[in-house]
Amino acid sequence: MVIIMRAGASAQEIGAVVKQIEQIGMRAHLSQGEERTIIGMVGNDRPVDRSVFELMSGVDRVVPILRPYKLASRDFKKDDTVIQISTGNGHAVKVGGQQNGLAMMAGPCAVETREQIMESARLVKAAGANILRGGAFKPRTSPYSFQGHGEEALKWLAEARQETGLAVVTEVMAPEQVPLVSAYADILQVGARNMQNYPLLNAVGLSTRPVLLKRGMMSTMEELLMAAEYILSNGNYNVMLCERGIRTFETYTRNTLDINAVPVLKSLSHLPVIVDPSHATGRWEYVTAAARAAIAAGADGLIVEVHPHPAEALSDGAQSLTPENYTRLVNQVRRVAEAVDRTV
Amino acid sequence: MVIIMRAGASAQEIGAVVKQIEQIGMRAHLSQGEERTIIGMVGNDRPVDRSVFELMSGVDRVVPILRPYKLASRDFKKDDTVIQISTGNGHAVKVGGQQNGLAMMAGPCAVETREQIMESARLVKAAGANILRGGAFKPRTSPYSFQGHGEEALKWLAEARQETGLAVVTEVMAPEQVPLVSAYADILQVGARNMQNYPLLNAVGLSTRPVLLKRGMMSTMEELLMAAEYILSNGNYNVMLCERGIRTFETYTRNTLDINAVPVLKSLSHLPVIVDPSHATGRWEYVTAAARAAIAAGADGLIVEVHPHPAEALSDGAQSLTPENYTRLVNQVRRVAEAVDRTV
Amino acid sequence: MVIIMRAGASAQEIGAVVKQIEQIGMRAHLSQGEERTIIGMVGNDRPVDRSVFELMSGVDRVVPILRPYKLASRDFKKDDTVIQISTGNGHAVKVGGQQNGLAMMAGPCAVETREQIMESARLVKAAGANILRGGAFKPRTSPYSFQGHGEEALKWLAEARQETGLAVVTEVMAPEQVPLVSAYADILQVGARNMQNYPLLNAVGLSTRPVLLKRGMMSTMEELLMAAEYILSNGNYNVMLCERGIRTFETYTRNTLDINAVPVLKSLSHLPVIVDPSHATGRWEYVTAAARAAIAAGADGLIVEVHPHPAEALSDGAQSLTPENYTRLVNQVRRVAEAVDRTV
Amino acid sequence: MVIIMRAGASAQEIGAVVKQIEQIGMRAHLSQGEERTIIGMVGNDRPVDRSVFELMSGVDRVVPILRPYKLASRDFKKDDTVIQISTGNGHAVKVGGQQNGLAMMAGPCAVETREQIMESARLVKAAGANILRGGAFKPRTSPYSFQGHGEEALKWLAEARQETGLAVVTEVMAPEQVPLVSAYADILQVGARNMQNYPLLNAVGLSTRPVLLKRGMMSTMEELLMAAEYILSNGNYNVMLCERGIRTFETYTRNTLDINAVPVLKSLSHLPVIVDPSHATGRWEYVTAAARAAIAAGADGLIVEVHPHPAEALSDGAQSLTPENYTRLVNQVRRVAEAVDRTV
Repeated sequence: MVIIMRAGASAQEIGAVVKQIEQIGMRAHLSQGEERTIIGMVGNDRPVDRSVFELMSGVDRVVPILRPYKLASRDFKKDDTVIQISTGNGHAVKVGGQQNGLAMMAGPCAVETREQIMESARLVKAAGANILRGGAFKPRTSPYSFQGHGEEALKWLAEARQETGLAVVTEVMAPEQVPLVSAYADILQVGARNMQNYPLLNAVGLSTRPVLLKRGMMSTMEELLMAAEYILSNGNYNVMLCERGIRTFETYTRNTLDINAVPVLKSLSHLPVIVDPSHATGRWEYVTAAARAAIAAGADGLIVEVHPHPAEALSDGAQSLTPENYTRLVNQVRRVAEAVDRTV
Repeated sequence: MVIIMRAGASAQEIGAVVKQIEQIGMRAHLSQGEERTIIGMVGNDRPVDRSVFELMSGVDRVVPILRPYKLASRDFKKDDTVIQISTGNGHAVKVGGQQNGLAMMAGPCAVETREQIMESARLVKAAGANILRGGAFKPRTSPYSFQGHGEEALKWLAEARQETGLAVVTEVMAPEQVPLVSAYADILQVGARNMQNYPLLNAVGLSTRPVLLKRGMMSTMEELLMAAEYILSNGNYNVMLCERGIRTFETYTRNTLDINAVPVLKSLSHLPVIVDPSHATGRWEYVTAAARAAIAAGADGLIVEVHPHPAEALSDGAQSLTPENYTRLVNQVRRVAEAVDRTV
Repeated sequence: MVIIMRAGASAQEIGAVVKQIEQIGMRAHLSQGEERTIIGMVGNDRPVDRSVFELMSGVDRVVPILRPYKLASRDFKKDDTVIQISTGNGHAVKVGGQQNGLAMMAGPCAVETREQIMESARLVKAAGANILRGGAFKPRTSPYSFQGHGEEALKWLAEARQETGLAVVTEVMAPEQVPLVSAYADILQVGARNMQNYPLLNAVGLSTRPVLLKRGMMSTMEELLMAAEYILSNGNYNVMLCERGIRTFETYTRNTLDINAVPVLKSLSHLPVIVDPSHATGRWEYVTAAARAAIAAGADGLIVEVHPHPAEALSDGAQSLTPENYTRLVNQVRRVAEAVDRTV
Repeated sequence: MVIIMRAGASAQEIGAVVKQIEQIGMRAHLSQGEERTIIGMVGNDRPVDRSVFELMSGVDRVVPILRPYKLASRDFKKDDTVIQISTGNGHAVKVGGQQNGLAMMAGPCAVETREQIMESARLVKAAGANILRGGAFKPRTSPYSFQGHGEEALKWLAEARQETGLAVVTEVMAPEQVPLVSAYADILQVGARNMQNYPLLNAVGLSTRPVLLKRGMMSTMEELLMAAEYILSNGNYNVMLCERGIRTFETYTRNTLDINAVPVLKSLSHLPVIVDPSHATGRWEYVTAAARAAIAAGADGLIVEVHPHPAEALSDGAQSLTPENYTRLVNQVRRVAEAVDRTV
């Protein structure tokens, strides 16, 4: 890190900072400007708490130099991570890497009935999806809303997997649910509201299942990468980053799809990047345009809400596509994918 | 809710909406404008998912009328909730209500050693605090940062409580920690990152300990009240709302203290409102001004980071006050409190 | 608008609202809910100030029903507006409409020298641009930064137009500059910082030149459409809306490209939508990905910063492409355009 | 500034940066870390465009060290600026400085009629105001809303000034209006939407009237200080900074009062800080709490919307106080002011 002293900091104040740097086993490097002195800290200072220095007399600001994540960074691993997702028919979907096809995740927000999820699975498979989504445990803003069917829904998902050969992604909400969800699902989803639920990140980090990590709706890309770092540092390297829209002052759409995050995350990190155009817009009529944009920007896949009968959906119906609209989306996305040398 | 049809919606589209309303057991009420038709839904539609209607043909927007929280609202309970916090010497601190003194919570961000927390407790008590804060379990952005001493720290907190007579507030991060933390602490803190961790909200809702619920840095006031509703609906009525700064585009301060939230929350809800000026500013030199503002705006208490030696703090040192500065804060806050007919 | 009364509003309070509605020549329509009364206002209430009602006793909230803009809306004009831009060689570029090619605006942020703008014009034309951008008057955050060469720069732009046949777009910063800039440029640009500079909007609204209206970095889509309404209501119907990134909490990129705005604006309005990927990302390495996304989402054109020697640029060098990179961008965008049935 | 090289930057890349620094007449200072090289630029680099360096091969980031404003900073001028405002009876109101009383600006949003402004002036004076506010030129989001009575309103304001002895503050919206408004008003207000209207900032900078500069609703504190720098650098040192709420994701209130800005601006700058609790909340019932908070935080004054008959106001009625409520506000603010050693 670099410590910027205030204009007019005394020699004593500068000396104290240097001494503090040396006390924690680093070396200090002074740069005397015309108006201010700048002190560089030499060494791997990732674990050093910068606030120690921010408090010292004469210090104006402390600027970190090293990115706080390591395992998630391109500096650490140059090549794209490719994640093998096992599917219901013994094959695998490969997610990540320019040479591999797109991960096409689709299905209803919540698993409502056995029939609904079986029907959804067949329809999204026919449209071109290779991974089935569906929530068994639902984080809901209101305690009075439908909270998911839990293990029963997991069983239905596994049945749909069996029949269609689709892999299954579903959300896990608490550390103690990880073994249960892992028993049925191919991919563990960590939801946006739980992106900084550290006990949960540690628990999925100890699992052997790939993880779909959703960006918090007001989390920076750096915080998303730090959350991924929690999982990676526990030994699970199969993490997919998911941009699902951020909260801004704009209220016409439910969230603002941060399309910049696609090329930025892919340049900062080797992990695959998935986009959720359903949450990122919140209105079904804009989902397809957002999906095309995501693939054009370089995303490795999409996760889309599709419901056989959206008007009867128990949650998030307004952002769900009908199967017909999802088929249209896949066809349009296929053409855009080819234009950027990817395939569906 | 009110359903606003598009300009030029057909009689058939309007009829379908009316039918759908009647199907879920409500009554529809049409209002034919010059350009648009508006359909009101009559009945308690809190549990109705508005997205069912947003998807229907011819519908432009759906506007909720009833606030989605009930138990947390002033409509439900007119009088200020007063929470009794038991303390180490058998007395109680009363939080909430214009007639009661301010809750003055203070202490280090993290419990680091037995000596540190004992010293902190004595110092903040001498300065005027009545509740001791200190983290045993620490949610940290980086997996490489200090994560807290866990149960050992809880024991030290209990010892400090015993000696000084201060009540203790400390964070609980996962549902399975609730019994352990409840065994030592007088108030369970739910941190900002966990404001929408629903399994945790349910768990503290089933506890008998008062809860300090911090507003998520990305959460609206309505979402904060919905999170409180989760706790209340589980039977625990002793919830304190805590404004601790929100994330905005302004980066000079760590967060933006939403001072408007103080009078707004107090008008929407009967629950006490506490302000955390330390996180809301992120820099110790602005903490005292923010604390004065909070009390002037009508807050029922403050939670402030104080460390006997801030430059050696293991976390958030830059926003911690020295004991001397905290004494100054208390003295200034006391004068402001008197100007708004409250006491310290 | 719809007026939502508080729970428990008295008959007298409701009566007063009804009377007030009738006094301004509208009709009131009551809907008596179980908990609350809702009063609809029947008639064209666009000019009615809702705050009159917000202040009345017993009123909880007032919800507008009609969109506040009219001329800019799809309701008012179903078909896409197509704007003819005259160019230096007597031809025209048509902007807007699925059947027309994309508007490809490119050039340096600021016009620095005659040589620089001539060289830029030749290079961007060769790469595939049809409109030349370049600032003669520069709004700069710092009074100490380069503010533009003014009229001299306009003359150089006109010369470049003459030689290359490109049309010219350049910013106008004050009402009194409109005649001068109109004398040289084919399109008047209103910058993001001036999106709510109403005297300027009125002045360009009285001009006969097409206008490129940039969204303010802090403005909602509705406010952008209201700013367009100012221009349209003065008689100038040739307005292009430009999404150029909004300000959010994310700081890694200079702005956040609101890609959702592309399909949303095109559905709410008949006006063409242009995207500026240079300002929306602020870093040249992400410009091409953002440009591809914009076209995939349905934009009618792009405005891109290109500088023959970006490292010597007097402003915004970091977001400028080299001519080689711009050529690459055009080639990639062409493929994406074809995938969405458009042409470059 | 400090230039942070990428991990693994070559000696050649580093050499090129050093050469570029020396070419613009600065000195380079290298600091070789374990993972990265950092290059400090020695000299007054305020006018240097950092993007020149951001573009160079091997550069990761460029961090500015010097604040970009100078005349507005506390470094430049240690003591509080005190601004003398001439009033209608030949006396002066002093704004700024702990020893001076608070600036109490009040009046209607818009000047509607002669009677309305005369009545307002008498009422706010009786309540304790010393400066009258009222808009003659109104920036309105909609072209169909009331835009102000212009010069006629200025004359009524002058008449109210004459009768009551109050000073007058009113908004100026375009450079060409400055002479006209200066002929009638004691303080020129630059509105939030015009905070980065540079021709206007230059024009008021050349005027001899004190300026009330409102913070843009999505402008950082640094940008506010840069806007002040524009005015100061033109020779007008009498600038008051006005915090009036920023735009955030919270929508319950119209804006979010950034109360942190009060102590921060006062520590970064010597200029007086005024708070506008009316716009910062947007709802009259929260104005008084916000006003108390502002003064407790250290503001030098308030600007409050008061209307003799708010329900009939032509603009912003919902945030206007009745004269009775304003009297209550002044009485409460007076007590808080005394608690922080100020006077009303």
